Amino acid sequence: MMNAMATPDLLTALRDTNPIVHCITNYVSMNIAANVILAAGASPAMVHAHEEIEDFTPLCNAVSINIGTLSVPWLASMTTAAQVANNHDIPWILDPVAHFISQFRRQAAQDLLNLRPTVVRGNASEILALAGEQGAGKGADAGDPVEAAHTAGQSLARQYDMVVAITGPTDYVTDGSKEIHISGGSEIMPRVTALGCALSALIAAYTAIGPRLDATVTALAHFKTAGTLAGQKANGPGSFESHFLDALSTLKDDNLTGVIA
Amino acid sequence: MMNAMATPDLLTALRDTNPIVHCITNYVSMNIAANVILAAGASPAMVHAHEEIEDFTPLCNAVSINIGTLSVPWLASMTTAAQVANNHDIPWILDPVAHFISQFRRQAAQDLLNLRPTVVRGNASEILALAGEQGAGKGADAGDPVEAAHTAGQSLARQYDMVVAITGPTDYVTDGSKEIHISGGSEIMPRVTALGCALSALIAAYTAIGPRLDATVTALAHFKTAGTLAGQKANGPGSFESHFLDALSTLKDDNLTGVIA
Amino acid sequence: MMNAMATPDLLTALRDTNPIVHCITNYVSMNIAANVILAAGASPAMVHAHEEIEDFTPLCNAVSINIGTLSVPWLASMTTAAQVANNHDIPWILDPVAHFISQFRRQAAQDLLNLRPTVVRGNASEILALAGEQGAGKGADAGDPVEAAHTAGQSLARQYDMVVAITGPTDYVTDGSKEIHISGGSEIMPRVTALGCALSALIAAYTAIGPRLDATVTALAHFKTAGTLAGQKANGPGSFESHFLDALSTLKDDNLTGVIA
Repeated sequence: MMNAMATPDLLTALRDTNPIVHCITNYVSMNIAANVILAAGASPAMVHAHEEIEDFTPLCNAVSINIGTLSVPWLASMTTAAQVANNHDIPWILDPVAHFISQFRRQAAQDLLNLRPTVVRGNASEILALAGEQGAGKGADAGDPVEAAHTAGQSLARQYDMVVAITGPTDYVTDGSKEIHISGGSEIMPRVTALGCALSALIAAYTAIGPRLDATVTALAHFKTAGTLAGQKANGPGSFESHFLDALSTLKDDNLTGVIA
Repeated sequence: MMNAMATPDLLTALRDTNPIVHCITNYVSMNIAANVILAAGASPAMVHAHEEIEDFTPLCNAVSINIGTLSVPWLASMTTAAQVANNHDIPWILDPVAHFISQFRRQAAQDLLNLRPTVVRGNASEILALAGEQGAGKGADAGDPVEAAHTAGQSLARQYDMVVAITGPTDYVTDGSKEIHISGGSEIMPRVTALGCALSALIAAYTAIGPRLDATVTALAHFKTAGTLAGQKANGPGSFESHFLDALSTLKDDNLTGVIA
Repeated sequence: MMNAMATPDLLTALRDTNPIVHCITNYVSMNIAANVILAAGASPAMVHAHEEIEDFTPLCNAVSINIGTLSVPWLASMTTAAQVANNHDIPWILDPVAHFISQFRRQAAQDLLNLRPTVVRGNASEILALAGEQGAGKGADAGDPVEAAHTAGQSLARQYDMVVAITGPTDYVTDGSKEIHISGGSEIMPRVTALGCALSALIAAYTAIGPRLDATVTALAHFKTAGTLAGQKANGPGSFESHFLDALSTLKDDNLTGVIA
């Protein structure tokens, strides 16, 4: 059970601390990521100009980097932001969105990974492909793909000394030794765009206030539980988004513990 | 009656096939276009970097190009995406948003049109102006402007061997010989931003799974019918958007036939 | 009391006139700003390419410039748009979002301010920092920060011959001599992203149809009153946004007068 090790009041701490999350994220996700961060209790800041990174990133409490609508100038800003975060001991999250769709993006994901993010979050395909390019994802071709992704995630976590979160119907988190599963959510969630991107930004917010593994687990539990509640009230993806943001803003620490194992 | 010729189960086919729609669209529309595509039953992919187009576009089932917040680098990506789509027999849609507002955009719309889209979607003003620049929109200055737009649309459809969709209170679709009208919708729709852009992306999704004329008609019928349902429940443009996405996700093929004539 | 001097039917006039608002605004705010303008009764146009500004800006009735996700090419377009607006006597609004976070943004805000916007809207921190860089915000270090921001706003208004709007729990508007307060709203509003940016765009819409001070006050009253209504119905930030847009679209002039003092 994770419950014993998780900081029990991390959600309350998030709201009390109100950390600033510097997001360099894709255009599709910007509005919903900012709204998720605000609803959860932290402060988003979308800033991407290379001219601003060295001034601004050190003022933030966490950084979220998402390559969803990547381009050459944005990649330069992401790279500098990761380096500045490292130099200032600021945690940063990498979301390697669909990094396998082009040589440009594949290389970008690898280069960012080499800068050692605090947490990587992706779906099973993304994590498998990320590990495969390292020669670490051998399990991908045989047996259960979800199990293969977990094995790949553990290898990546050990190789880069980071936390890996693999999200899906059941979320999986590992630091290379511990393994935690988070249940809940709604089958409507994949029908709402950019929720995964927004989740990465929420993980970043939590890494500002707690140990990386606990922070990741609490972010996922917060997200899954809000998804469960919204799914019970929604009539489809439109009303889901509205209920989901409401639920993120009203949940308490006590609501989150049951979904973590 | 269109009903006899329309593929009767195109909406079910969309959900079963789940085609990938590569969207290069304006910033305002990205989130709602992705949500419309997801709610309807397909998969959106917003990718614009020129470095990725040649790798990524061939992996997609349709392309949606929208010049709403056009810039020089994005135009280069749109042009390459249209060329790659042509080379791979992938259908692509052009949405020439307000192409008459500047010389830059007017030229861009003409250059993209010369690459022969599968479908062009616009409002009456946009189609009239597009035809007028060809010398084909002579009817624009006299009589009923809606009728003039239909005549212009037919000329354009013949000239470029494409389908033209003119959307408004009643939608009009032509391939240069056949003419189909789609009724329904809600007067709230023009008060929600980027719905037209999202509709173009939905047409792209349907062109991935059916003949271009049937695909366009079914996309418009799906959109109009969802608009009708949402309009009955909404208290204004905010609640409309929520109900509209819900309706897109719950409609069945049988719900669409009555609005096509 | 402001009521005596405010144009009593400015909201009706907005809907009747339907002015076009050229917005060069940040990525996070684009969709919600467009939806706010549409819900209120005007027409948004998001256009940022430098190639289009000289053709397009003169066709518009107001311009809204917001530096929220600033970059070098966008700043060039903002600068040209402000100059074109000045040359054509088109009112324009500056929203100096978080201009204190980097040297790049600080300089950009100052350069745009030197082009003499019709209205500047910001929160207390932004207005204080803007004045401080002029040596005009001496009051910022002592006493009540809200009072200090009001003093700073008055100085700025006089120095640049403009209207300054400082928004917060109670909004404050000044042209350097008159002072107006607008009450209402909801404590949920700061938990919805980009509402301040959308408000700046709404001020722009009103400046197209009324004197700058009345226009600003009416925009703020329209926004605050919609916020009050939405706050009464909402269960959190997700449902708030939906109710808020609905309320913007249904309010009448008579609903706005009580909140202005």
